[in-house]
Amino acid sequence: MRVSLGALSKHLGGELVGDAQATVSRIGPLESADAQTICFLSNPRYQSQLPASAAGCVIVGPGLRDAAVARGAALICADPYLAYARLTQWWAAQTRGVPIPGIHPSAVVEPGAWIDPQASVGPIAFVGAGARIEAGAVVGAQAHVGVDAMVGQRTVLKPRVVLGDGCCIGARGIVHSGAVIGADGFGFAPAKDEQGGHWEKIEQLGAVVIGDDVEIGANTCIDRGALDDTVLEDGVKLDNLVQIGHNVRIGAHTAFAGCVGVAGSARIGRHCTAGGGAIILGHLEIVDHVHITAATVISRSIHKPGQYSGMFPFDDNASWEKNAATLRHLYTLRERLRALEKKT
Amino acid sequence: MRVSLGALSKHLGGELVGDAQATVSRIGPLESADAQTICFLSNPRYQSQLPASAAGCVIVGPGLRDAAVARGAALICADPYLAYARLTQWWAAQTRGVPIPGIHPSAVVEPGAWIDPQASVGPIAFVGAGARIEAGAVVGAQAHVGVDAMVGQRTVLKPRVVLGDGCCIGARGIVHSGAVIGADGFGFAPAKDEQGGHWEKIEQLGAVVIGDDVEIGANTCIDRGALDDTVLEDGVKLDNLVQIGHNVRIGAHTAFAGCVGVAGSARIGRHCTAGGGAIILGHLEIVDHVHITAATVISRSIHKPGQYSGMFPFDDNASWEKNAATLRHLYTLRERLRALEKKT
Amino acid sequence: MRVSLGALSKHLGGELVGDAQATVSRIGPLESADAQTICFLSNPRYQSQLPASAAGCVIVGPGLRDAAVARGAALICADPYLAYARLTQWWAAQTRGVPIPGIHPSAVVEPGAWIDPQASVGPIAFVGAGARIEAGAVVGAQAHVGVDAMVGQRTVLKPRVVLGDGCCIGARGIVHSGAVIGADGFGFAPAKDEQGGHWEKIEQLGAVVIGDDVEIGANTCIDRGALDDTVLEDGVKLDNLVQIGHNVRIGAHTAFAGCVGVAGSARIGRHCTAGGGAIILGHLEIVDHVHITAATVISRSIHKPGQYSGMFPFDDNASWEKNAATLRHLYTLRERLRALEKKT
Repeated sequence: MRVSLGALSKHLGGELVGDAQATVSRIGPLESADAQTICFLSNPRYQSQLPASAAGCVIVGPGLRDAAVARGAALICADPYLAYARLTQWWAAQTRGVPIPGIHPSAVVEPGAWIDPQASVGPIAFVGAGARIEAGAVVGAQAHVGVDAMVGQRTVLKPRVVLGDGCCIGARGIVHSGAVIGADGFGFAPAKDEQGGHWEKIEQLGAVVIGDDVEIGANTCIDRGALDDTVLEDGVKLDNLVQIGHNVRIGAHTAFAGCVGVAGSARIGRHCTAGGGAIILGHLEIVDHVHITAATVISRSIHKPGQYSGMFPFDDNASWEKNAATLRHLYTLRERLRALEKKT
Repeated sequence: MRVSLGALSKHLGGELVGDAQATVSRIGPLESADAQTICFLSNPRYQSQLPASAAGCVIVGPGLRDAAVARGAALICADPYLAYARLTQWWAAQTRGVPIPGIHPSAVVEPGAWIDPQASVGPIAFVGAGARIEAGAVVGAQAHVGVDAMVGQRTVLKPRVVLGDGCCIGARGIVHSGAVIGADGFGFAPAKDEQGGHWEKIEQLGAVVIGDDVEIGANTCIDRGALDDTVLEDGVKLDNLVQIGHNVRIGAHTAFAGCVGVAGSARIGRHCTAGGGAIILGHLEIVDHVHITAATVISRSIHKPGQYSGMFPFDDNASWEKNAATLRHLYTLRERLRALEKKT
Repeated sequence: MRVSLGALSKHLGGELVGDAQATVSRIGPLESADAQTICFLSNPRYQSQLPASAAGCVIVGPGLRDAAVARGAALICADPYLAYARLTQWWAAQTRGVPIPGIHPSAVVEPGAWIDPQASVGPIAFVGAGARIEAGAVVGAQAHVGVDAMVGQRTVLKPRVVLGDGCCIGARGIVHSGAVIGADGFGFAPAKDEQGGHWEKIEQLGAVVIGDDVEIGANTCIDRGALDDTVLEDGVKLDNLVQIGHNVRIGAHTAFAGCVGVAGSARIGRHCTAGGGAIILGHLEIVDHVHITAATVISRSIHKPGQYSGMFPFDDNASWEKNAATLRHLYTLRERLRALEKKT
């Protein structure tokens, strides 16, 4: 695809400085750009790459206007990172095929399911009895939509998604391949017997309820509630391989990176974030605007917005071994220090 | 569904105090209950919610009998949490459809597979040559059962499960969607070459052998053994996104929460538990009745029952940064303390 | 299968000491071997098991020649672990069926896909428009190959793999069940609105490019790049449930154990390894020959080869609690120590 800077600036807004007839055919990073590449620069840390870049056009904020214009064509936008996001959306819409509404002959649709004529059901998909698919939804190849499940308008279930019985997802959602929504929560009661005891299953009678504009990563799991539902509010974004336990509630516009795990019944606020591999234990509360550093374990409720961290700092193996061995006696060290303080 | 307290107490046992003709139509939490809700109270911590609850009936233990009866109808059971588990099981059996034995026309069954006439094979399932499916087993939509695999009586493979060639699972098991049983263990021998070396694959010739009454979570992986088999004994419960390496042995009635990882050849005892995100390294032994706290890394064998922990305590980011920086010099601190002690 | 020691030594090389006509019918561990079992011994730590083993033949290195020969038949190889790897490969080729080229009638192949007549496409597979499958490739049951994707010669996609649009994998690769290659990277720009803000999707316009001889574990996810591609060089080995973020580059012959997570744009060298559950943060660089201990979090670039570690040492719960509580005041302890040092 080849597009003129004038057409782009018309779509994205902002002020174009340079030849509106000039064209670009690729979005790319600043350091490997050529004359056919449009780039963006939002982080001032990378400003030093600007003068030498061969990019056909650079999207910058007002603060970098002079530096950008000195180099060549520039599109000045209030928020260049957001303009870049919208550019990728526009680009994808132009270059990728739009899913065609309809039902693939290989799909399995159970009697009683209601599918809007504008919806699209992919090859080898499975749609359970009583399921409801709204106009413009796309159900990917080999996806499985359970009994009485609901898929909102223009939501896309990618190939091989499982949406369990009675679970629903709102409008404009994206669920990536391999995600499992609505498996049983992990609930068992200990029962005594002559062999030293066993686990008695607690049937999970709730469902999963997901709002609008939610994105769910590949192979991520969201368990159904035990009695009430597990809830993801509007605008939540989950990366790949995330585990959400039963009866968790995640507030609107909260985003979790890959491999995050949230144990059952945790209640997480709005506009929170968690870095990759963070773990949030069960039955605790986190207020709005809490940001959790990667690989941090949240073991009690957080009542104040802010950034929270707790990872062991890595080191070369020999140094780590010495420090870790000492850490196992840290309490004793404190006692010894206390004794010394009394003495002197 | 609407059911009388008399019918419930007949099924669950225990002593009903209150009107046996009164009905409930929902199981729910104490704090949001109405007159049509039956609740349970097993943790004394929540006892304060009891007087104000509008629940139609509360299941309690003998110790809370007076408090419960003062409020309204109550079912007094020796173990109220276990009674609750059995109530959910009974409820699910009444309200959810029972899978109908038979083979869905979309399923793929290879020649040589033996399927009991009472077994149920779901839509778009795949059953390999020589596979054996026992009476009452349910193989879900788009599940894949490999060559010579075996599924025991009344075991349920949910949609999109993979049970690899030669792997078997006993009776009354539940395997949730996306679980992969019998992928290759991770085994490679380093080989020298002119380019600085490469990895030579060690073919994984063992299988996975799973006992009776085992539940396996969504997207959990259990690798086949290298030479011998990977073994899960009876009653093991694994949550979602758990990784079990090759040749691991997990003792009966052990339960692991989400995101736990167990490296190859670890031998874990009976009646153990591990919290979410715990990691157990390879080639070590853990005795019966060991309980591992969430996010703890078990790096050597454990010979004594008990609770074991090892997570970095989280803090606000600024405090964590100061403490983590000091931790990298902890060994030196100890040396300085020792020097001071000698001096004074 | 029953095979003579002479035939085996002819295939594996090395020097056979013992009766070339004697046969074995199983590869097994030293401690449970019988006269029909062939074993290997490469780790001197297990040497004590040698004299009492009933194995029909033992593969050892030159250093253990005398000890092995004193016991019975032995195959002396320069690298016994590598010989064992090659023995398993040969064994698997003899005992397991070879996939038959062809396309299963249940597979879905979109118009425009090109499939070599020698390739094998399994039952219920899905092959997108414009996809290219090379001679000898095996696409497993219910696998999904996207538009314009490419599968190299003799590469095997196991049942239920997703290879996204435009992604490609080279020759002799193995992708295990449930792996998702080419889901969207996790990229969003924060956008302001009257409700306190939301996330605007950054479309992921890159793909995933995978070299030759790569193995990818079950339920592992490799995201497509934002603008450029995510790249795995030749010979990379990834275990199960690994997460690779967008625009990561992994150097040749690097191997990651289960549950490893790599955040976006990290660049990892050649011949590196990471133990289970390790996390590598984004936008950092790791040189060749870096070895990361299990459960370690790599939070900044590593410029020097070596072993790096950073896990909290586990302990019985009571000791851990005391040490963890003290750790939250470690910085203050240092200040107190400093004050004492000044005083004395």
